Parts: sequence; C-alpha cells; structure tokens
Amino acid sequence: MNEPRKVITAAVLVIGDEILSGRTKDRNVGYIAEYLTNIGIDLREARVVPDVEEEIVAALNALRARYTYVFTTGGIGPTHDDITADAVAKAFGVAIGEDSRALAMMMERYQPGDLTPARRRMARIPVGADLVENPISKAPGFRLGNVIVMAGVPSVMQVMLDSAASALETGEKIIAETIEAGGVPEGRYGTALGEVAAAHPEVAIGSYPAFLDGRFRNQIVVRGKDAEKIAAARAALDAMLARLNAGDKPL
Amino acid sequence: MNEPRKVITAAVLVIGDEILSGRTKDRNVGYIAEYLTNIGIDLREARVVPDVEEEIVAALNALRARYTYVFTTGGIGPTHDDITADAVAKAFGVAIGEDSRALAMMMERYQPGDLTPARRRMARIPVGADLVENPISKAPGFRLGNVIVMAGVPSVMQVMLDSAASALETGEKIIAETIEAGGVPEGRYGTALGEVAAAHPEVAIGSYPAFLDGRFRNQIVVRGKDAEKIAAARAALDAMLARLNAGDKPL
Repeated sequence: MNEPRKVITAAVLVIGDEILSGRTKDRNVGYIAEYLTNIGIDLREARVVPDVEEEIVAALNALRARYTYVFTTGGIGPTHDDITADAVAKAFGVAIGEDSRALAMMMERYQPGDLTPARRRMARIPVGADLVENPISKAPGFRLGNVIVMAGVPSVMQVMLDSAASALETGEKIIAETIEAGGVPEGRYGTALGEVAAAHPEVAIGSYPAFLDGRFRNQIVVRGKDAEKIAAARAALDAMLARLNAGDKPL
Repeated sequence: MNEPRKVITAAVLVIGDEILSGRTKDRNVGYIAEYLTNIGIDLREARVVPDVEEEIVAALNALRARYTYVFTTGGIGPTHDDITADAVAKAFGVAIGEDSRALAMMMERYQPGDLTPARRRMARIPVGADLVENPISKAPGFRLGNVIVMAGVPSVMQVMLDSAASALETGEKIIAETIEAGGVPEGRYGTALGEVAAAHPEVAIGSYPAFLDGRFRNQIVVRGKDAEKIAAARAALDAMLARLNAGDKPL
C-alpha cells in the first residue's frame, strides 16, 4: 500500500480597498483556486482586507500559522497605498529595505534616470525573502517563509504565480468528476444524494445549481484523491439519476 | 455643523467548497461590495470558507462581533452539503426547525406532493430569525441578529439582497471621483501622489493600474464623505498631472 501523500493547504489574502468598495472585481481568488487545485494544493480559505496595515498583519498572522502557504495579491506597486511589503515585514518581525537583487531586476526595464523614488519603493523587500520573478513589468514579488506576495493586476499576478510555483511543495491532486443532472431539480434528488454521500464518506459530493434562462440547471460534482472511490460514488449517482429519470417519485 | 452620521460596516462570508476549488468563480463579493457602497454601508472584509460547520461558525462569530452586518452567501439549498442554516443557529446558540412561514412561501411554488424531504430542508430556519424573501425560487433567506443569510446563486442572492436592504441601517454614502491618469505610469507620479495624499488626510486616495494591450493604464480614485474635501484633493491631483504632462521631470 502506498503511503498517503501529505496534504498541502493554502489561503489567499486579497489586499485592497478597491475590491471592498466594489470598484474592482476580484479575479485572482478564482484563478489561484483553480491553479492550486490543479497542482495538488488545497485552498482552504480566502480573505479580502483593506489597505490598512494592522488588518493585513492580523490576517497574515492568522493565516500563515494555519496553512502550508499564504498567497497575497495587491499592494506592491509604487504608490503610497501600496503597503503590503511593509505589512509582511511587520507580521514576521523582520526589517525591510531596498533589495539590490530587486533593483537589478527593475533596471532591466527602467533607465537609471527613470528609477524615480516611487519606483524604487518597489525594490523594498523584507530581509530574508526570496524574490518572485515578474517577466511582465520586472518589479518582483517575494516569498518570506510560507507567504508568497504577488501583484494585484491579474496578468502580473499570474506570471508571478508561475514563477513561485516550482518551489512549492504539492500533495496529491484532487480528481473532480462532474455529472450533469440536467433539468432534474436539486429538490428531487436531495435526499437520495445525501444517502449516496453518507455511503461514500471518502469523497466529497456537492450539488451546484445555476439559474439560467429562468430555469435551474444542476451539476453534481464528486471530488477526492482516490480514483476507485470516485468511480464507485459516480456509479451510485448515475444509478440514482437513472431512477429519477425513469419517472420514479421524487427521492 | 451637521452631526456626522454613524459609520455602518459590513463583512461578506462566502460559504462553499466550489469557490475554493476554483470550480465556481465568485461573483457575489463584487456585487455586494458595490451595492453596499451605493447605500452607505462600508464593506470592510470578505472571507471564503468551505462547507465545514466549525469553519463557518468560527468565521461568523469573528465577523458578527466586529461589523454592523454580516452577509453570507451559499449553502442554503436542499442538499446535504447545504449546512449554512445549521451553522448560523449553532453560532448564535439557538435551535433550528421547520419554519411555517418559510414553508408557506415555498408552497407558492411547489405543489404539496412536490415538497420532498430535501426541499423541506430549505424551510429549516433558526428560531428567532426574520425571513428574507426570494421572489425567484421562493425558498427564503433569513436574518438573525446582524447576520443576513442569502443564497449562493447570484440571481437569487441579488433579489434576496434587495429584500433585506430596506431593513438595513445605512450611513453616509461614500463619494468616489475617478481621475484618468492615462498613459502616465504610476512610477512617475507615485511620490507626488503620496504628498497629495498626506496633505488631504480626510479623503482616501488610491492608484489603480490595469495592464491592457501590453501597457499599464492608471486611474487615481479619491474617496470620502465630504464633497468639498474631495474637490480640493481632486484639484491638487489635476494640478499634479498637468505638471507631469507639461513634461516636468518625474515627480
């Protein structure tokens, strides 16, 4: 029997007033969620906090103590409201200063005369951090301990996540099987579904309605790490839907 | 001088494994954020937690103690993974049971014979809660204390938010002015922007880059509750950008 692989967990911390005001709609949580699922890391929590140092520090310390990794997005640009690097340094109790490696990366993009004081702020990195490369706009993210600090602009965050991913420990990938319940309403299969779920405790079974064109359409998703157990649950669910579609009474 | 109005705060708690796996991309936080901003409620935090009772209870208790309101989305359907109502009852230490008002609402939609045990689950409401009407699919949300419990399907959540909103206490609306910084990179105005922000402490000034077609485009947003103070900050920012566009050195 194979030794089960370690479970690797993560949280995302989105930093930015603009998300909480509704001005900017976050697209990073969904992207990171899918990315981590695909490489075998279980995203367990996400939080959005404002550009307020004590809020960022408190959330970081709560999350980094609890999960294998914490991914932050936002707040590492050149303006006064970009305070993530300072907040991370404070959370870890380390100093922060201009990092010569970060400055060297930025000089690939900027002429020395264009390195304004504001831009140099982006080279301020907590002491002890590893840099996370940014092929798009060069100013790097960083990793300190189990915290990976990335930009908020989605395209830049995405290349930083690619840069950081190779150094991440990963666990067994989750397998997800989606079953189209079609027009069968959740309320007709809810009880039977609960019975199938109870009989297959080693997989997670979810039912996801979407309301489209005035009608609910449902999908049932089976998730787990063991292909045989997923197949068994799927067979039970297919049988359940077949009974329903054969016109049996609601289950 | 007018008495300043009370500040009303809120948090959103998104409940659902499907958001954390990346299968479903959350659209509710952004919608609620914009909605609350428009009615004068400050959204201060958002969290996403899985379909795990103790996680929901812990997050609810942390958030409801801290903010005027907590809005939850997800987990109130008819299937076994819909555990939000039970978690809310547990967080408040109250009983939960079938609610005759909720059942009456559901009977507007379902024939008695269609009220399966699974559907009846949706009439389970914590004792002492007020119902939140759902004109789309009838099964209601509810409000218990300062917690408003809504569906996860965006169209249903949106009508529930409309239903709940009239009973909410609201504060002064935030005014937001957006200034197009156009092609001027953040790194060229960062320092000057910080000086303007420091000189106008009663407004919040943010700088928001977007990366489009291979170029950054920036917007500067001034937010606050006092129109005169916003106008003053805006004038200072316009002057700053005019200096930059006149070809002055990076500030």
